[in-house]
Amino acid sequence: MSPRTTRVVCLVRRPEKEPAPGDFTVEERPLPPLGEGQLLVRNLYMSVDPSMRGRLESTEKHYTHNFTPGSPLDGRALGVVEESRCPGVPPGVYVRHQLGWRERAVLNAADTDGADRIDPQLAPLPTWLGLLGQTGFTAYVGLTRVAALRPGDTVFVSAAAGAVGTAAGQFARLLGADRVVGTAGGPDKCALLVKEFGYDAAADYRAEPVRDSLARMAPDGIDVYFDNVGGEQLAAALHALRTGGRVALCGMMSQFGGARRTVDINHLIQAVLKRLMLCGFIVRDHDDLRPEFEQQVAGWLAEGRITTRETVVDGLENAPGALLSLLGGGNVGKMLVSLGDSG
Amino acid sequence: MSPRTTRVVCLVRRPEKEPAPGDFTVEERPLPPLGEGQLLVRNLYMSVDPSMRGRLESTEKHYTHNFTPGSPLDGRALGVVEESRCPGVPPGVYVRHQLGWRERAVLNAADTDGADRIDPQLAPLPTWLGLLGQTGFTAYVGLTRVAALRPGDTVFVSAAAGAVGTAAGQFARLLGADRVVGTAGGPDKCALLVKEFGYDAAADYRAEPVRDSLARMAPDGIDVYFDNVGGEQLAAALHALRTGGRVALCGMMSQFGGARRTVDINHLIQAVLKRLMLCGFIVRDHDDLRPEFEQQVAGWLAEGRITTRETVVDGLENAPGALLSLLGGGNVGKMLVSLGDSG
Repeated sequence: MSPRTTRVVCLVRRPEKEPAPGDFTVEERPLPPLGEGQLLVRNLYMSVDPSMRGRLESTEKHYTHNFTPGSPLDGRALGVVEESRCPGVPPGVYVRHQLGWRERAVLNAADTDGADRIDPQLAPLPTWLGLLGQTGFTAYVGLTRVAALRPGDTVFVSAAAGAVGTAAGQFARLLGADRVVGTAGGPDKCALLVKEFGYDAAADYRAEPVRDSLARMAPDGIDVYFDNVGGEQLAAALHALRTGGRVALCGMMSQFGGARRTVDINHLIQAVLKRLMLCGFIVRDHDDLRPEFEQQVAGWLAEGRITTRETVVDGLENAPGALLSLLGGGNVGKMLVSLGDSG
Repeated sequence: MSPRTTRVVCLVRRPEKEPAPGDFTVEERPLPPLGEGQLLVRNLYMSVDPSMRGRLESTEKHYTHNFTPGSPLDGRALGVVEESRCPGVPPGVYVRHQLGWRERAVLNAADTDGADRIDPQLAPLPTWLGLLGQTGFTAYVGLTRVAALRPGDTVFVSAAAGAVGTAAGQFARLLGADRVVGTAGGPDKCALLVKEFGYDAAADYRAEPVRDSLARMAPDGIDVYFDNVGGEQLAAALHALRTGGRVALCGMMSQFGGARRTVDINHLIQAVLKRLMLCGFIVRDHDDLRPEFEQQVAGWLAEGRITTRETVVDGLENAPGALLSLLGGGNVGKMLVSLGDSG
């Protein structure tokens, strides 16, 4: 007899400033009956993403929907099929999909992103949400297509100890960058970046102005900036960029939270003086690159040329805390929630 | 007997805030003797450019040199050859070059930009510094290559009544833009933009926030922003741009002068949300486009499909005043100094 309900994480209210534990609740919700072409999936891992921060707000989105108070959150997840009304997708198969933040989900197997079957022999399950998932693909698209990385480039990555940052630094190196430098919050993360993630140098953005640390880490300037934070670090990068430099605008975490400071948009005069290109992107515009990406990264993983690291929190009831921890910089590498014991 | 000296405009000191008449002086300086391959040119028209503002400062340039206190200014000019030691360039020929801000100049005929011979039959002399000069070429490169203008686009141009702005609006329309809107300082300029320069709508940036005027002039959003000013107008454009929109970063006049206000760089989150591309450019990187540009614009001029308008000031001693007037928004179209009576 299949379960009729599932536990889900719901948004109680939009955060006033910083999100807080009371903004979320775990509730029992009914599961719809399984229709033709649908799958009942038990989630094993859920992705916790910085982009969720913006979806807690009410401001208009152009690439996704906002979360709604009173409704469940959603997000990338990986689960195992428990029941199937879809020929060719038997129970026991692993699928990657969009209905995370709940223990079980009913999916349309045929939807884009509805249920993307993955091979657990090729890489461990968490890797399918990390280096081989949207996270790694974001780093790959940003470097190769948006920033048009060239062999010999000097690359700067902010939020370098995060999921995308740890991927971007390693990919940049493997794609031929000459020097890779990054910023992160705190000395421990900076040490890890150099020791484990192939960065040539890393600096604590809280300890000194990034303009100063960039001058030290990349005295001859940078060619590519992979921007996860915006604000002061973006301004610093504009000054450090060499003529013809390129910026992949991936996120602007600095615009959220109480520590937000206004930084003058006219630092962009550097873009005129040095013919810089800045470009925002969303990975799903670049799905044509996905086969190349998966082959490349699966190869690097198989050859042991790349380090994967996850911060894993157990249990659905701890998922809101995992998000708050991520937004506070509490993770190294990919932040995941494991639901392994929930079944 | 050829003249041994020429009057030149010199920089006395770098401006403290706004440039003032006392920052400039007109002096008599010796002319070097004419060497092999050189030309003595009497200047007839000199270009007065917004980009000169930045060259008065001491901050590092990446694409040109700063002016130096005690030394002559320079800039685009058009003159007639008075003496020649260059076979094939006889006296009486008209040349376009870089040694303006003086009545006479000795040029190396073979240098790039040293002496670019022009045909006065094809277009009036001032047009060779305006629509057919760097000014028009800047508008053309910014629209066609940097912003990748497509037929049907809605285009927004700031400083629309300036030399580049009056060219950009007309070019955008002729290149197939569906709607062209602009901002300028004051109601008279705005009326001219619609009446003479083919803009569908124009708004006074001093009279209301540009975010409001853009919402009125382009309620469905814009696809291309040709940015001459930066600051608040750039922020407004980021909000008005549609998904996939493109920004040609041509200048940042708002960063100079006492009225400068800080605008938050994190408006660039719009670039992430809507996959916007922003790109600074310098026309000389795009010289391969010049033949196409000259053919295109000469054709439009011959067909009477384009309006040229200059603000012309007479006499070298009035050149500093022309620059100050330009920086204060006193011109419509191309600002030129005429030296016709100086010979």
